Amino acid sequence: MTDPLFGKLALVGIGHIGASIALAARRGGVVGEIAISTRSPATLARAEELGLGDVYFADAADAVRGADLVIVCVPVGASGDVAKAIGPHLKAGAIVSDVGSVKVSVVKAMAPHLPSAVHFIPGHPLAGTEHSGPDAGLVDLFQNRWCVLTPAETADPAAVEKLMAFWRALGANVEAMSAEHHDLVLAITSHLPHLIAYNIVGTASDLESGIRSEVLKFSASGFRDFTRIAASDPTMWRDVFLNNKEAVLEMLGRFNEDLATLTRAIRNGDGDTLFDLFTRTRAIRRSIVAIGQDTSAPDFGRRDHTKPDQAKT
Amino acid sequence: MTDPLFGKLALVGIGHIGASIALAARRGGVVGEIAISTRSPATLARAEELGLGDVYFADAADAVRGADLVIVCVPVGASGDVAKAIGPHLKAGAIVSDVGSVKVSVVKAMAPHLPSAVHFIPGHPLAGTEHSGPDAGLVDLFQNRWCVLTPAETADPAAVEKLMAFWRALGANVEAMSAEHHDLVLAITSHLPHLIAYNIVGTASDLESGIRSEVLKFSASGFRDFTRIAASDPTMWRDVFLNNKEAVLEMLGRFNEDLATLTRAIRNGDGDTLFDLFTRTRAIRRSIVAIGQDTSAPDFGRRDHTKPDQAKT
Repeated sequence: MTDPLFGKLALVGIGHIGASIALAARRGGVVGEIAISTRSPATLARAEELGLGDVYFADAADAVRGADLVIVCVPVGASGDVAKAIGPHLKAGAIVSDVGSVKVSVVKAMAPHLPSAVHFIPGHPLAGTEHSGPDAGLVDLFQNRWCVLTPAETADPAAVEKLMAFWRALGANVEAMSAEHHDLVLAITSHLPHLIAYNIVGTASDLESGIRSEVLKFSASGFRDFTRIAASDPTMWRDVFLNNKEAVLEMLGRFNEDLATLTRAIRNGDGDTLFDLFTRTRAIRRSIVAIGQDTSAPDFGRRDHTKPDQAKT
Repeated sequence: MTDPLFGKLALVGIGHIGASIALAARRGGVVGEIAISTRSPATLARAEELGLGDVYFADAADAVRGADLVIVCVPVGASGDVAKAIGPHLKAGAIVSDVGSVKVSVVKAMAPHLPSAVHFIPGHPLAGTEHSGPDAGLVDLFQNRWCVLTPAETADPAAVEKLMAFWRALGANVEAMSAEHHDLVLAITSHLPHLIAYNIVGTASDLESGIRSEVLKFSASGFRDFTRIAASDPTMWRDVFLNNKEAVLEMLGRFNEDLATLTRAIRNGDGDTLFDLFTRTRAIRRSIVAIGQDTSAPDFGRRDHTKPDQAKT
């Protein structure tokens, strides 16, 4: 039994990610005590029923008092208000982090409200499913996934290293980069794919009703994979697009240019252009399998599509 | 031991789908004998090494002689040439089918070359992975998947029923509809999703090299699911887009209109429009899970992402 990395962890917000942090930190003995707060009385009660923490508060200020590590796990649009609420109650020397999918706007929203005596080190675990809420917590969610930290250049190296150790203890691989760079990389790897998935599922849902029921029935032929992505939390993703506007619009511009080329090739019956692109994209897939970010095993899109409702693990 | 449904099955083309049919038909004792042909000597030799059939021919005409069921398993762009080659050698009363992802153009290409004494009943099993070639054959590929048949109105009901029984014996659920309707439904459930996936992966691969390596590294955050779709066989998909041009362009037009609305909402900071769409798409996902076309179990996109190279089943 080793000593916990942090005596007291405070989680502000206890949805899918917050609950997963609580479960993973508890199992690994990574923290001594877990304080949980959320504005929703129903969610707070549910977190307590699930036994995710040790103490529970409606007010974030109460939860963060005396905490050595505070992780804000709310939609990014709410992070500024949370920082304002907890700022005056933070312990000197505490590490304050978050899990938001965008970083520049979160830094802009939170930093002004945090006292200089705390270490503000923004973070983003690249993990999550399409489920939300405290019941969606998964103890293994961060296992072998990336967690990106975006410390300012002036950040205390010892504090950064300690937060890195925390995420490693939860099973994650950790990488540090600037907030700006994070937002650009995530715009193409995550935000644009989500936007496209939302869009195509929306297009399908607007179809005449005769076709719509068949879209559901025959969804396994490709569409289904998009619906899983497009089932992600609406509040979280609204905030992502509003807060990473420039990078998303930049990537969307490139996507549209490419789609125009592809559309023209189809219209003109230009098979060579299509074949060349489709060969190039196949190579990208091989690179991803080669670096261990996915497996080449066929799973037909899902682990076991014959069982309609597997138990969560 | 029941009698086989067909005495002799001829498979023209022995890629991912053809090989899977051979394996499934053999296991179920669905046919008495399997004849295989393909123009590629290397592929033919590999099919024989794998023991997929009983007899092997370089010339499709030799394979189809005396066959009771002929299934053409080639990219749809090649189906006309195959029909021309086998037409004069087909047995009277034989059923001729295919597995192409588009149906109107396949009917147009094949029908003129087939004698009136055979039953031409086009088909499309909605199954497949991103892998190709005879080694990618999977005995369970059609289990609980849909197979759509598009018989002409004049088709012999007994022949249609017999082909349905064949696919059911391979584990599939069978549905009949017109070729035109099939092409429209597949344009939105399969062809457009593939086109979009190819496009976004292409956009990412054109990025400056500094970002591109990170796109691979952090691909698990959404992008990865697209790369799997975009790794599908280039020849097959080139032919799909060239042969279902009208329906794909129609759906692409709707997709683009919707994407323009979404882009404007992001640019204007219009969170309500985003939130409304994201809520609507989540409901679609629930419908798909409710009708058993997918499971709600979290699998992080893949069965087990911690094992980089699982064995095929």
